Amino acid sequence: MSSEFEIIRQYFNQSQSPSRADVIVGIGDDAAILAVPEKHQLVQSVDTLIAGVHFPIETSAADIAYKALAVNLSDMAAMGAEPAWFTLAITLPNDNHKWLKEFSSSLSLLSNKFGVQLVGGDTTHGSLSLSITINGFVPIDKALRRDQAKVGDKVYVSGTIGDAALALSAWQGDCCLENESIDFLNNKLNRPLPQINLGLLLRDYASSCIDISDGLIADLEHITDMSKVGAEINFQSIPLSKEFLLNNITKQHVLDLVLSCGDDYQLCFTIPKSKQEKFESEAKKENAAVSCIGEITSGSDVTCFYNGEILNRPKAGYNHFSEEKK
Amino acid sequence: MSSEFEIIRQYFNQSQSPSRADVIVGIGDDAAILAVPEKHQLVQSVDTLIAGVHFPIETSAADIAYKALAVNLSDMAAMGAEPAWFTLAITLPNDNHKWLKEFSSSLSLLSNKFGVQLVGGDTTHGSLSLSITINGFVPIDKALRRDQAKVGDKVYVSGTIGDAALALSAWQGDCCLENESIDFLNNKLNRPLPQINLGLLLRDYASSCIDISDGLIADLEHITDMSKVGAEINFQSIPLSKEFLLNNITKQHVLDLVLSCGDDYQLCFTIPKSKQEKFESEAKKENAAVSCIGEITSGSDVTCFYNGEILNRPKAGYNHFSEEKK
Repeated sequence: MSSEFEIIRQYFNQSQSPSRADVIVGIGDDAAILAVPEKHQLVQSVDTLIAGVHFPIETSAADIAYKALAVNLSDMAAMGAEPAWFTLAITLPNDNHKWLKEFSSSLSLLSNKFGVQLVGGDTTHGSLSLSITINGFVPIDKALRRDQAKVGDKVYVSGTIGDAALALSAWQGDCCLENESIDFLNNKLNRPLPQINLGLLLRDYASSCIDISDGLIADLEHITDMSKVGAEINFQSIPLSKEFLLNNITKQHVLDLVLSCGDDYQLCFTIPKSKQEKFESEAKKENAAVSCIGEITSGSDVTCFYNGEILNRPKAGYNHFSEEKK
Repeated sequence: MSSEFEIIRQYFNQSQSPSRADVIVGIGDDAAILAVPEKHQLVQSVDTLIAGVHFPIETSAADIAYKALAVNLSDMAAMGAEPAWFTLAITLPNDNHKWLKEFSSSLSLLSNKFGVQLVGGDTTHGSLSLSITINGFVPIDKALRRDQAKVGDKVYVSGTIGDAALALSAWQGDCCLENESIDFLNNKLNRPLPQINLGLLLRDYASSCIDISDGLIADLEHITDMSKVGAEINFQSIPLSKEFLLNNITKQHVLDLVLSCGDDYQLCFTIPKSKQEKFESEAKKENAAVSCIGEITSGSDVTCFYNGEILNRPKAGYNHFSEEKK
């Protein structure tokens, strides 16, 4: 078997990701040395993906690499941060070179697309799992947070909601997908596009922001809990893709997928009314698809209306410890 | 079972570690927001520990937590960095509350001792493993690196070498320990003390530095490879503890433990001759035990002498992919 050092040299070396001027020392020392620009704050997040829990074990190496980095980049988007560097702690069951090559090429592609450099990591032996720590920066006090939503602010989401959940549901055997929608929906599940540019735009407009990973209601509740407010949203305002709508599934299933399942990695955010018009015009200029789905209220709950009637509270977002999903 | 959020709320909340003024947002948002001081660089490292690979599965929760953080702090020491913040990605097989309480208390104790704040993480479900990302900072261009050792520099180590390896060897059944040495040696294996203060002192003296995790020779080779030099060390100059020497083990076993096994988390570093005297006097003032064990040469190998004769090259340091250690 190849050594840990050999695997790092061959598949995770400096040439696999962009070379940034703010990386003083990258891979190869006890730690990376990095220069955060003056008058900026560091933004850091970590996400772990485990085979059989966060992705089906038969997922391709390329999709695993893409998604592991993408979900971390999505956290940067949710903070309005400019992503810069990441580390990769990867646990491998073996040194399958075809797998490693496919994995590192895909990681390289996405890291180059977003200009983020791999600056360190750890390679260990065991069941397949990955932990990526992503680092970015924001000008001082410009980060988007969860705790600043105010009563009267408008609630928005980006893109379309429920696509990834529908693909996952079909993969789990709960439903069948129409042929014309399969590629689109699987792509939404396996290759979510981090909303970095929208996050940067939101710095000047949003009062709060989160990315939708656990489910729309659960994630919006993170905002309302932290901001000590409530929210009302209108189901019919939530944007659904035409590929989602192509599929003939029950209303209850649609509600579950859109409201309670995550994995879309779109942004959910709040915009003060006074900034709404300007924001929508700027978003249009940047071709960012955003939809107003409701408003922040003085209550403490998230209420969803359908044809003017309150929907029963849907089941909670995905939780790794209360569901046994293998 | 407790939810992921409940576990974080109960065991990994803000009160578990010191509250630092440079943490703008800690646990609870999509990412932490952190302020690196002006004219400083960020130093970042990640280490993964897997049950059954990096520690015996019967290791206590308290020892696991201590060691996971300590080995990361040791990377900061090796860089001359002041540690500041860490994130914890932990994968748990279940929500054993006694285990979690013991784990978080121990983590809290060590993080308070070194003033490092837990600022984020991820809790997932699977076989026990932990990935800690540690962050610290150094004044611009003051970090200790592996690539700046020069011919004629003196090679040093801190503390005593081989203690942790002897404890591990006994645990693996290769030898028996004398009663009077057991606690001392096990403590060296399970509770290595990160050499943070020595790292800070070395900023003004050392030309290179690394922490001894893979084995003295293997780690010194990381310095000589990166610095494009060689080194000669004298076995009899390597400091051994009286507890190590209490035990009746073969010479070959001693050589292996001291030269080729890691886990001591002492520092190995090089000091230019011109700074040697001043450094030794400063180290003495700070009660830092340091020993000169050799010198950097113009060659490309690390050679170890014993009674003036060259020792056969010992086996390489611990490597997770070439040994199957369960």
